[in-house]
Amino acid sequence: MEKNNNHVVIMAGGIGSRFWPMSTPEYPKQFIDVIGCGKSLIQLTVERFLPVCPLTNFWVVTSEKYVDIVKEQLPGIPESNILAEPEPRNTAPCIAYACWKIGKKYPDANIAVTPSDALVVNTGEFERIIKQALTFTAERDAIVTVGIKPSRPETGYGYICAGEAEAGSEICRVEAFKEKPDYETACKYMEAGNYLWNAGIFVWNRKTITEEIRRYTPGLASTMDEMSKDFFTDKETETVERLFHTCEKISIDYAVMEKSDKIFTIPADFGWSDLGSWGSLKTLLDKDSNGNACVGTGVKLYDSHDNIVHVADERKVVIEGLDGYIVAERNGALLICRLKNEQKIKEFAK
Amino acid sequence: MEKNNNHVVIMAGGIGSRFWPMSTPEYPKQFIDVIGCGKSLIQLTVERFLPVCPLTNFWVVTSEKYVDIVKEQLPGIPESNILAEPEPRNTAPCIAYACWKIGKKYPDANIAVTPSDALVVNTGEFERIIKQALTFTAERDAIVTVGIKPSRPETGYGYICAGEAEAGSEICRVEAFKEKPDYETACKYMEAGNYLWNAGIFVWNRKTITEEIRRYTPGLASTMDEMSKDFFTDKETETVERLFHTCEKISIDYAVMEKSDKIFTIPADFGWSDLGSWGSLKTLLDKDSNGNACVGTGVKLYDSHDNIVHVADERKVVIEGLDGYIVAERNGALLICRLKNEQKIKEFAK
Repeated sequence: MEKNNNHVVIMAGGIGSRFWPMSTPEYPKQFIDVIGCGKSLIQLTVERFLPVCPLTNFWVVTSEKYVDIVKEQLPGIPESNILAEPEPRNTAPCIAYACWKIGKKYPDANIAVTPSDALVVNTGEFERIIKQALTFTAERDAIVTVGIKPSRPETGYGYICAGEAEAGSEICRVEAFKEKPDYETACKYMEAGNYLWNAGIFVWNRKTITEEIRRYTPGLASTMDEMSKDFFTDKETETVERLFHTCEKISIDYAVMEKSDKIFTIPADFGWSDLGSWGSLKTLLDKDSNGNACVGTGVKLYDSHDNIVHVADERKVVIEGLDGYIVAERNGALLICRLKNEQKIKEFAK
Repeated sequence: MEKNNNHVVIMAGGIGSRFWPMSTPEYPKQFIDVIGCGKSLIQLTVERFLPVCPLTNFWVVTSEKYVDIVKEQLPGIPESNILAEPEPRNTAPCIAYACWKIGKKYPDANIAVTPSDALVVNTGEFERIIKQALTFTAERDAIVTVGIKPSRPETGYGYICAGEAEAGSEICRVEAFKEKPDYETACKYMEAGNYLWNAGIFVWNRKTITEEIRRYTPGLASTMDEMSKDFFTDKETETVERLFHTCEKISIDYAVMEKSDKIFTIPADFGWSDLGSWGSLKTLLDKDSNGNACVGTGVKLYDSHDNIVHVADERKVVIEGLDGYIVAERNGALLICRLKNEQKIKEFAK
């Protein structure tokens, strides 16, 4: 069998505060069975990437306090592949830690990086896209960011402006990254056809990403060089504890993407959602004839419409005469809130 | 110290289906801290009657399946004073069982009978009324039913039509019992001034009630005579099991009250509620400035009005934008229902 250089890095440090009380800082969204399929979002993420490489090539970067949850939910991933961040320092240090650590054992690694809390509906198409990107970066000094074809003029995401496709490939040069647009601009992007959502899924080989980080964020690179000496030794935890918090708090987009000239994108349409709000979750779930989306067994609705109900802990739920609400219960906390006011939830959760 | 012939019989066999999920057939209303004071309704009932006699003179008649809950909640009551009904046969057999059993040991007993799931606000006045009734029945061959002065033209209760008061007493002859009236009739009763609610609280001496039951429901009396042989012996449970279900299913009102010529009433005004509905519970509870009544710690309401929230099991509850609802959670069951539709709850609970 041919040697598999592919690796998958899963970023799983988020706290999911917009989904309280389903998601809490103690047990956030990526570890929850958000859609009621029997698997958490991180388990679904692993499943989606399994055609790419064996579980021993999966790496999870998470907060120290979630390490036990990761071990429990993903028993097939080696413990030494679970990287604990002493504190969140945004995506660049998180990704650098993973890529430097992989590099110490697998200098020829070809790497896909993904969030742990997004959802993909068409996993077959997802596999095709990721494999194409990995084939591309296996041979080229390139950074590929997956660009989601927009289905609506969304103002909540950054956009990627794609240029011409490379010869014989779906992969395009990136002309520019665009900040979250206003509604009018978002509509123009939709019309133009070559603007894509930045989903935070990246593909590159180990050599390219470490070189680009070294070029554009040299301080981060030298901290990683220092930490790297103790990777895979008894001293790793102590060293990471001592040095990680000194890393600049910076996103990979700002640290590398917007500066490098090796950036490509692969336009993709595989039914992606970042599950960023109860509203977006409701859109994805099956609904009854009255527009209600329910996760949880034993939910009965009477004269109720357009609600999202997420009550995995409850054995029996009866709702009468409710329209357009979020009803969520988990672990002794209950939320009843109008969907249109869900932006207030972050504040409620405090 | 003078011998205390007073006894209290608490009827605690109800299933409280109108208060699901706070109240369930496994753990009904009388055993719940309905008003959030730290005590269940049956504990409050005992407390209210404590000035009348010692705990050793309290008797609880309940369903077999609630015996353990009674023991746990009322540890001061002797186990032999807890009477288990093999099945509910309405109030006449329940009361007869208690009075025959008390009679075997205490033939001179003077007895107050009460439901376990009602609430009294003015316990001082309650004590005064009950003691007056007990003094009356200690000396007379009389049945006294407590008559609540109506505060509204309620159509959900039966009424007692009171005659003239006895000389030097507040206690009156009863002229008639009236079925639940229509609204117009209820208004007339209010105006007349001598119509009272039948609260199901009775006072009599042991000799009177057993004689009246023997006179008007002789079948029940002879079953009790038969059962009585084994009271306070090892055979009691077996005998009750064998005979209790043969008792006629009949209320004490129909079996005795409406037939006997020894019926009196004592008009009372001590802030009584039978807590027959979420609406009546809401009336009794303290409300915030937006008209919300909450039982449970950690409940936060935003832009919400006129709700009743009963969530003793939950540690944190946030409700946004809800008006006029019942929100109740207990033991893995959650109800959200408009207060105006609470009559549907019995059906939901199935």
